Amino acid sequence: MANVSISTVSRVINNSQTVNSEIRKRVQDVLEATQFRPNAIARTLVKNDTSLIGVLLPAIKNNVFDDMVEGINQVAHLYGFDVIIALSGGDEDSEIHYYNMFREMQASGIIISVSEIRDALFALIEAAGIPCILVGRDFRDQSIPSVHVDNITAAFEAVTYLIQQGHQDIAMLQGPAGDISVGNQRFLGYEQALKTAHLPVRAERVLESGFSVEDGITSMRKLYHSGPLPSAVFCATDRIAIGAMNFLAENGVKIPEQVSFLGFDDIDMATIIRPKLSTVRYSASELGMVAARNLIKLIRGEELAAVHWSISHQLEIRDSITKHGVS
Amino acid sequence: MANVSISTVSRVINNSQTVNSEIRKRVQDVLEATQFRPNAIARTLVKNDTSLIGVLLPAIKNNVFDDMVEGINQVAHLYGFDVIIALSGGDEDSEIHYYNMFREMQASGIIISVSEIRDALFALIEAAGIPCILVGRDFRDQSIPSVHVDNITAAFEAVTYLIQQGHQDIAMLQGPAGDISVGNQRFLGYEQALKTAHLPVRAERVLESGFSVEDGITSMRKLYHSGPLPSAVFCATDRIAIGAMNFLAENGVKIPEQVSFLGFDDIDMATIIRPKLSTVRYSASELGMVAARNLIKLIRGEELAAVHWSISHQLEIRDSITKHGVS
Repeated sequence: MANVSISTVSRVINNSQTVNSEIRKRVQDVLEATQFRPNAIARTLVKNDTSLIGVLLPAIKNNVFDDMVEGINQVAHLYGFDVIIALSGGDEDSEIHYYNMFREMQASGIIISVSEIRDALFALIEAAGIPCILVGRDFRDQSIPSVHVDNITAAFEAVTYLIQQGHQDIAMLQGPAGDISVGNQRFLGYEQALKTAHLPVRAERVLESGFSVEDGITSMRKLYHSGPLPSAVFCATDRIAIGAMNFLAENGVKIPEQVSFLGFDDIDMATIIRPKLSTVRYSASELGMVAARNLIKLIRGEELAAVHWSISHQLEIRDSITKHGVS
Repeated sequence: MANVSISTVSRVINNSQTVNSEIRKRVQDVLEATQFRPNAIARTLVKNDTSLIGVLLPAIKNNVFDDMVEGINQVAHLYGFDVIIALSGGDEDSEIHYYNMFREMQASGIIISVSEIRDALFALIEAAGIPCILVGRDFRDQSIPSVHVDNITAAFEAVTYLIQQGHQDIAMLQGPAGDISVGNQRFLGYEQALKTAHLPVRAERVLESGFSVEDGITSMRKLYHSGPLPSAVFCATDRIAIGAMNFLAENGVKIPEQVSFLGFDDIDMATIIRPKLSTVRYSASELGMVAARNLIKLIRGEELAAVHWSISHQLEIRDSITKHGVS
């Protein structure tokens, strides 16, 4: 449109001084009229100036990833980084595929939410050398930096609280069998609390399911039909707890008089349902913010104060728990 | 590592026949050992074979975008497309910025969720010529293809149902004032239903807020303190309805005996709260699937049966509505 050669356009874009000002003006006008932006990716192949953070999540449905992404976005934008997200479905092949895609897009840094140790992926991360932060579980035995909620300690404290209220028969509705992160770590905390109090960990009191409200209903139905009810139930997520409480209420079981409930995540529904759900609260957006801040430090070559960070948590005691065995 | 020139490596990657088989093997071994994948972006600059779909959303928090993205992902992966997501925060500058980023990444197609007509963005989309589908509201007056829920008709039907149950004083808790899509279109349906039934549309019965549970509490508090309660409330989202019902329950108001409620979206909590919330149900994942399928047709140059599609909806009548004025 400007009637000049491609190399002239290129020289204008790159502010070369070898283009005369009349031609420069003509090219710039056309570029403006067509809203042309030089191909950023092609440009970075030469100049290496992308400022892109890739975020790789298993999914964004039914969990706290939305808050986490909000936290990442907020910090990234403060420092002038663009954020793009890809969803792996929690499958390692897909994680490696998207990791490589981010790498090919020359992302400055990558945040990955994985729930397990991934030998091939982690080896690739180490080899590629692109700044990377893992989020979502405790990876302190790994050399890749990570941010997590201390799920084991939080679950230990939650179940210890139930024990201190006099509960001895405490069931757990945990996450999927294959999930060795959140669900499993929260189970480990449950187990630790029972053992510390010299209470038995009984396999029939631990039910596996997904993390959703529906899963909570399904698990509670099984528990309900399997024999006498426990006096308290610790759930790996609030959604499981809400589903389970709903099932019991439908069947005329009084909460907390007959069964106490303790959830995890403090989603907004926890204070909406009746009785209000006691739960473990932490900030998923803080998780994202800490990950993004430290990633940006890594990108800039600054020194990190630590390699693994945990986000604080606290018990929110509401109406779903009552003392047991007090007469 | 293979001790050959860069151009030889390039010829191996591109399966050129001018490389002898021993050297080819040596290069391939190194590529494999280092998990090297040719820079896809650089490659597409020449070959134009990326298969990437860019998805641009305002946010992923507190709404149905998670289901929509799931639908997009499911269809995209069936056809071998990668999906990346960027969040604009609902700001047009940011939308244009990310649109251009997708363009520079040479995305094959782009799905954009915008809630308003965006003159600059839409002009850019038309000029760029990359296959693009809009989702989320009725854009039938635009030439860019779009997929939407027919919010006006759905809200009209919902409010007409309330009127048929004998309600005449129906309040609406709608979305943000600036939101001329979902919130506003649902308001238009509300207005249409009242007018059709020759009922007055009273400004003091329409409250604006965000879309969250907290917003529902805030709006209901205002309505509660502003005079006598309406006999029914139509809410722009289930979350608003859940917050509002919660506020009234806390204040001893009986639902549905004193106030009936009708929400929109059919989120999982709608059947968990008591009374179970009557609502408008549609499939957000269908929204994503229809958008992705038609985008892929556009990418492949196939003819589309239509340019604008609407997703079906239906009323889910549960326990939050009672007949009014029947004695």
